[in-house]
Amino acid sequence: MPEKGEGYELNKGFKTMIKSLCTISESQTSLDSIISWIEKRNREVSVAVERVPFKLLDQWVIYPDHSLHHSSGKFFSVEGVHVRTDYPQPREWEQPVINQPEIGYLGILAKTFDGVLHFLMQAKIEPGNVNHVQLSPTLQATKSNYELVHGGKVPAYLDYFRNAAPNQILLDQLQSEQGARFLRKRNRNMIVRVEEDIPVFEDFRWMTLGQIKELMRRDNCVNMDVRAVIAGIDFADYPLSEADLDQMSGFGRDMLGSALTQSGVKTMRELQSWLAGLRYGYTLSVERIPLNEAREWQCRDDEIARFDKKCFRVIGAKVHIENREVVSWCQPLAQSMQQGICAFIVKRINGVYHFLVQAKLECGTRDVFELAPTVQCLTESVFDGSPRPPYTDYVLNARKEQIIYDTLQSEEGGRFFHEQNRNMIVLADDAFPEEVPPAFQWMTLGQMCEFLRFSNYVNIQARSLLAAIKFSK
Amino acid sequence: MPEKGEGYELNKGFKTMIKSLCTISESQTSLDSIISWIEKRNREVSVAVERVPFKLLDQWVIYPDHSLHHSSGKFFSVEGVHVRTDYPQPREWEQPVINQPEIGYLGILAKTFDGVLHFLMQAKIEPGNVNHVQLSPTLQATKSNYELVHGGKVPAYLDYFRNAAPNQILLDQLQSEQGARFLRKRNRNMIVRVEEDIPVFEDFRWMTLGQIKELMRRDNCVNMDVRAVIAGIDFADYPLSEADLDQMSGFGRDMLGSALTQSGVKTMRELQSWLAGLRYGYTLSVERIPLNEAREWQCRDDEIARFDKKCFRVIGAKVHIENREVVSWCQPLAQSMQQGICAFIVKRINGVYHFLVQAKLECGTRDVFELAPTVQCLTESVFDGSPRPPYTDYVLNARKEQIIYDTLQSEEGGRFFHEQNRNMIVLADDAFPEEVPPAFQWMTLGQMCEFLRFSNYVNIQARSLLAAIKFSK
Repeated sequence: MPEKGEGYELNKGFKTMIKSLCTISESQTSLDSIISWIEKRNREVSVAVERVPFKLLDQWVIYPDHSLHHSSGKFFSVEGVHVRTDYPQPREWEQPVINQPEIGYLGILAKTFDGVLHFLMQAKIEPGNVNHVQLSPTLQATKSNYELVHGGKVPAYLDYFRNAAPNQILLDQLQSEQGARFLRKRNRNMIVRVEEDIPVFEDFRWMTLGQIKELMRRDNCVNMDVRAVIAGIDFADYPLSEADLDQMSGFGRDMLGSALTQSGVKTMRELQSWLAGLRYGYTLSVERIPLNEAREWQCRDDEIARFDKKCFRVIGAKVHIENREVVSWCQPLAQSMQQGICAFIVKRINGVYHFLVQAKLECGTRDVFELAPTVQCLTESVFDGSPRPPYTDYVLNARKEQIIYDTLQSEEGGRFFHEQNRNMIVLADDAFPEEVPPAFQWMTLGQMCEFLRFSNYVNIQARSLLAAIKFSK
Repeated sequence: MPEKGEGYELNKGFKTMIKSLCTISESQTSLDSIISWIEKRNREVSVAVERVPFKLLDQWVIYPDHSLHHSSGKFFSVEGVHVRTDYPQPREWEQPVINQPEIGYLGILAKTFDGVLHFLMQAKIEPGNVNHVQLSPTLQATKSNYELVHGGKVPAYLDYFRNAAPNQILLDQLQSEQGARFLRKRNRNMIVRVEEDIPVFEDFRWMTLGQIKELMRRDNCVNMDVRAVIAGIDFADYPLSEADLDQMSGFGRDMLGSALTQSGVKTMRELQSWLAGLRYGYTLSVERIPLNEAREWQCRDDEIARFDKKCFRVIGAKVHIENREVVSWCQPLAQSMQQGICAFIVKRINGVYHFLVQAKLECGTRDVFELAPTVQCLTESVFDGSPRPPYTDYVLNARKEQIIYDTLQSEEGGRFFHEQNRNMIVLADDAFPEEVPPAFQWMTLGQMCEFLRFSNYVNIQARSLLAAIKFSK
């Protein structure tokens, strides 16, 4: 009988992946030197984001309904939608969304040095980043980028992804972005390994997966796109040695056990049935409307915002970056009106770690519901007196020893202005009930990874948290 | 290490599924008595489908653009779409589609008798069936049906599906219907097992999976919905005994071997990457347009058809069924202008049967491409002198000993009028090249089943053919 992952395994001898997961020091580049490099890059760069009225956004057109469009007709636009759903009770609302129909590449190159797989990370400036420079994938480009719709150069390393041979591809998935802001946007997440020597440009460094995960323990250091891609690596696909296990913490070994477990409290069939039932049972209808007719929203010369100032607003930004060269451009950015929280509660059940997963409906989701963290309140106020979403209090009141992970992580700085969310992984205490509400299920890491192999199942906030799981000591 | 299917297995002791697959005689009902029963039901019933102008369709409204809508605003409508794609070259066309946003149930009840799982089949009359009565699932109902939008009774057995406990559910998937005719229509395919005695109404009979597959060897006997549901059963999930293997043909044992093989000529990762590349690389845009503005189409009082009379047309039907009771109603039906062909070419590679799978783009597909049979020409003329789709000639010229399966099967008689397609499974000869064009891949049955566990991957024509695979002697 074939084993789990057998259909996926690239190469029985491909031991360098788990080695990479466990390696923090002794790599091509030390962790300290990576940190100094990012800090240096941050010091060297000057980023000015000037708020300007929309009409001063170069190459952007304001349509009569106040929606915003790039003059090429490509790239992205900001449009109005009317949303109707009967979940959890009949509800209707209107809002602006970012409409970016084209699928972008989020690509990471990988190469083995001294028996350890390394990933080529870029120190990338994005206008919306709180700290200017964050680690990003080797390639982060929409079609408009590399078809040069808004000027600029062909992105570095593009051809390694466009021309990758099947046996080079470690990961290749279409995955969603934030459903509350984007209309069905997806990226093509790829990890491509190379064997030959390749040029390493000035803004790029090779690092191990262990190092990337270590850097994710710092606030706003590893960008959303890296997190979204590496979450897709299923460690059950790769061979493991005794030496690797020695490099793992007790928690890491237990997490690997969870990754190797495909049947938890619920079987995959039960989980798929639960999700099919929700997608069957509730409707989500999203219709375009003229943006200036969106109720609760006001389109002004310099912002599109709710009357009550909640959720988020769209602003016009003139971006000016001084680095080795000077670049400037204009674009709209979405600015969150408050910080959000994304948290997984994790509990050991029958000796195996299970994640408490929520089925979440968002207006931009392609298939009504996706699997989301236990707590995800991005755009709704948690503290305004309205009843808080389930488990929010539990997460916010977790005792120190329950907290496995707690950092601030940025959303994509190419579209979001200074948006950071608190990312947490919290261990449930023994008293935490196994019984959960209908929109929640306990899943092993192996089950989440099984869903992650397919499109439109695991949302980006859940992937960001899965990427943060540290296995090494 | 867990084994393939481990996360899905309902019950290690659930041996009655494979037993059902292998049992044709010695069941609750003999095959002969089933056939006589269907023939008798066919004789007893009188079905008159009278073509009427659309304005005489009771409870249907013709909008100013000539689109057709049920007066409840629910059920389904016939509307116009404009389709644009850059695959295989930039192409644009307009056509009517059936828009049925609500997800219907296709549910089959299962129960073990004498150690063999039986399925409760219904002899159901549909207006579009060439032969009036075909075997259909226990439950075949849209929300409009059971919310009684267009009159009638609550469908029998509905509550067994609505109230199924997780451990009763053998299969629960959202799967697509014909993408060339329906706009993103899906059904909730379910198999629910019961242990208690349940009433068996007059139009229903228990039968084994082996019997259903045997009946699929007859023309137009098992309806599309049954075929679409049973295709989802992954035999790798169920335990197998030596006695079962003895009941299988050599071909059946080899097919089971293919079902147990998750890594074929290509790994699952390579196949997913191939599909991600196609979905990334090509665009499909579908916009609603006024139906009477659809180029190439003419909306007349009694038909919506292409000027060249190709593809299909929409007609108005007044249906009158005389049976134990008299029922009549009106509805539009889609009538194909020619017979189509759906065929899988199967080849033994490295000792394992592989299916030659095509990635097919259709206007109503939810995610640009779905996995389709090697040959599927439903709505385009094969014989008009234009170049035939790849492999069509090979299939049509197959020698008798290459043909594993060759019958006429009906599309859903609730929407399609007298539409039947030739369904074929053809064995490739030794000279058949393993090298295939970019839109094709070789997959094992186990790999197809892995895709089938998730939504929006395997199209209904492919599922209809997979359902036809006979394992028993």
